[in-house]
Amino acid sequence: MTEPHEPLLLTDLYELTMVQSYLAEGLSGQAVFEFFVRRLPPNRNFLIAAGIEEALAYLEGAGCSEEDLAWLAAQPGMHADLIAYLRAYRFTGDVDAMPVGTIFFPHEPVLRVTAPLPQAQLAETRLINLLHFCTVVASKAVRVRLAAPGKTLIDFGLRRAHGAEAGMLAARTSYAVGFDGTSNVLAARRFGLPAMGTMAHSYIEAHADEAQAFEAYARSNPGNVVFLLDTYDTEAAARTVVRLAPRLQAAGIAIRGVRIDSGDLAAHARRVRAILDDGGLHGTTILASGNLDEFRIQELLATEAPIDGFGIGAAADNAADAPLVDCGYKLVAYRGRPRRKKSEAKETWAGAKQVFRQFDAAGRIARDVVALTSERLPGTPLLVPMMRNGRRVAPPTNLDAVRSFVRRNLDTLPEALRSLTPAPPFSAEISSGVLAATAAAS
Amino acid sequence: MTEPHEPLLLTDLYELTMVQSYLAEGLSGQAVFEFFVRRLPPNRNFLIAAGIEEALAYLEGAGCSEEDLAWLAAQPGMHADLIAYLRAYRFTGDVDAMPVGTIFFPHEPVLRVTAPLPQAQLAETRLINLLHFCTVVASKAVRVRLAAPGKTLIDFGLRRAHGAEAGMLAARTSYAVGFDGTSNVLAARRFGLPAMGTMAHSYIEAHADEAQAFEAYARSNPGNVVFLLDTYDTEAAARTVVRLAPRLQAAGIAIRGVRIDSGDLAAHARRVRAILDDGGLHGTTILASGNLDEFRIQELLATEAPIDGFGIGAAADNAADAPLVDCGYKLVAYRGRPRRKKSEAKETWAGAKQVFRQFDAAGRIARDVVALTSERLPGTPLLVPMMRNGRRVAPPTNLDAVRSFVRRNLDTLPEALRSLTPAPPFSAEISSGVLAATAAAS
Repeated sequence: MTEPHEPLLLTDLYELTMVQSYLAEGLSGQAVFEFFVRRLPPNRNFLIAAGIEEALAYLEGAGCSEEDLAWLAAQPGMHADLIAYLRAYRFTGDVDAMPVGTIFFPHEPVLRVTAPLPQAQLAETRLINLLHFCTVVASKAVRVRLAAPGKTLIDFGLRRAHGAEAGMLAARTSYAVGFDGTSNVLAARRFGLPAMGTMAHSYIEAHADEAQAFEAYARSNPGNVVFLLDTYDTEAAARTVVRLAPRLQAAGIAIRGVRIDSGDLAAHARRVRAILDDGGLHGTTILASGNLDEFRIQELLATEAPIDGFGIGAAADNAADAPLVDCGYKLVAYRGRPRRKKSEAKETWAGAKQVFRQFDAAGRIARDVVALTSERLPGTPLLVPMMRNGRRVAPPTNLDAVRSFVRRNLDTLPEALRSLTPAPPFSAEISSGVLAATAAAS
Repeated sequence: MTEPHEPLLLTDLYELTMVQSYLAEGLSGQAVFEFFVRRLPPNRNFLIAAGIEEALAYLEGAGCSEEDLAWLAAQPGMHADLIAYLRAYRFTGDVDAMPVGTIFFPHEPVLRVTAPLPQAQLAETRLINLLHFCTVVASKAVRVRLAAPGKTLIDFGLRRAHGAEAGMLAARTSYAVGFDGTSNVLAARRFGLPAMGTMAHSYIEAHADEAQAFEAYARSNPGNVVFLLDTYDTEAAARTVVRLAPRLQAAGIAIRGVRIDSGDLAAHARRVRAILDDGGLHGTTILASGNLDEFRIQELLATEAPIDGFGIGAAADNAADAPLVDCGYKLVAYRGRPRRKKSEAKETWAGAKQVFRQFDAAGRIARDVVALTSERLPGTPLLVPMMRNGRRVAPPTNLDAVRSFVRRNLDTLPEALRSLTPAPPFSAEISSGVLAATAAAS
């Protein structure tokens, strides 16, 4: 009666019509599909693998309710064979993938599915949907992290994320790659993230007086006192905070921080810092927000603005400068034979592949080679077993472990690629085995 | 035991801490909040109101499960009063809004909530999340519709939409503003949309031979035969289609269409059209896809490329050139008194507002005036009652009626604003009443 957690009908119609044909033809041999990115989007020197956990959860949980099946059976052209197949559907294949947080480059397989053709085909749409978006967010959020070392970063993006799931995935993914928390309460609950927040302008405006608004908020939320300063006049509000402080301290309430959301953030932060310090509030931190991205943050910090943390909205949740990446989930082998398409400007490399990464003496990425899984090359293989016969090889990695892994991965980034502006591109090499397989598939 | 359809915890933490303070202070007077856009994003001469149905469904359905409440109660700083309030929560306010498909401009209220302050505040995050994204999609999709009059337009965007809900909302919204169908099966099921699709390159590659792949697909899907031509060689594939046609026709199977997904789409379409026509397949249509947006489509059609329809992916589902819009949901009145914030470059107009639209003799938009709800100005009021005392005034509008409304609305668009490139901006005027209310709130 209940909807499956991951409805199989969340897919493109052609996946169903193709499966219908595969079933009629008996094409259920082992297929290998790989998810990869064709080219870097603007302003990106590297990408960060993400969405793997979500992809595995999808493969484990996908199914059709009887209501879904009844509806589908009533659609023109849908065969009883397809309905029976979907009713019995369970993913029984293997998945190898880069762990969440792995740095990767175009034409490197990020996730590889090895499964009977109809299963691997059916998974296409939702796997791309999850892997693409999480990679977009991770690759953006990590740039914000690089721009603001040591600063508190909070995901404020739910309201302008593209729907609820985007807000949820962005909260989790930005935390995984180094943010400190999120304003999204449901994401905090589901994923165990630190929930963080301040107050809105409307809160201040609903009161006759800003000082009264601040005091009431502090008394109701004594453990989370962060005052929003810019509803009327930022510096006047900072002076109000200083005036209020003794009374709040007497009640045992500390003023943790203030937030500035508009105007010249660096100039305001400097003046507010001086006012707070003069008032003895050295421990009260300054949080900035308002259409911030990694470029604005870098500028602000370059002026040594005394800002302790940033609330990041749309930049984290919809990566406005690069909200999409040219990617694909392509058949690379069927029944052991390499496959590829030759569409103009969209050619793919054939064969089931692995990426071997070599490091220089300083531990930085020196060379990536995309090779066949049957080749043994020097370096660390980046794709690791995630699922065998439809069962996860290991339980989901906890987020703290992912965060450590991301930090270690970022330490391997060549200095030039850390820049927020475009660097000379780093390209993976293609092994002789892949070249031969691709020629054989042609 | 079950999650509510619309969990109240899908919100920013500060909505909860502010409500906690409102409850402690007894601030539960009537508040008016308005959703509006501050400025047009790049490449937009107007915007299309959307997400209203979803917003109303949210207000009707939002709630907290006992599990949510238990979790929240265990978080530091959350009061028993807040938990009790959320347990009993039901939205009891009024909503006035522009119907889905209404053309609007910056600083015009699109949706107005009038409700006790804690209720109106709690709704903020999710209302923005829905209204913002649906407006982004509608405003993009309608440009594609304007660029391709009379052509079939299909939403292919699920895979690169930002998560599942984005794909669902985009399918519904793009159809509402004039697309003809979607590849998204779940959206077709939930919203009653036409599901459309073809086949993928992987389908062809899984076969030893393209002709065999085409024939098998046609026999399995006789009512939906659209062959993908560009896996290996587009024109060779078109000739294969012509060769297959007699055998399929003998089996009663018509070849409805072909799809071209790469290369010079106009040149391929011309050559494919000639091959199909020479083969007597005059009724077989040509569908083009592959990173298309309104600009590419306009270019293709300007060359009179014989393309009958377009599959639109990321352009429809994440509006890559303008994936976000600067918007807000702001308190404009509390207990009958106008309110506003004065934050630098983010000032808002005070007072509960209506938009009055006047038309010229040809029925085109001539003048919009943003006025107080208490003012009576010439013209058509754009916001209409949607909800009273938490109950919908009318059942949800069916999508066909919305589509007709959108078409009529587009007929009112001044010629200059129909251009895909930026036109001199059309600005709403601000009434004397709004100016006075704003001055009074200062």
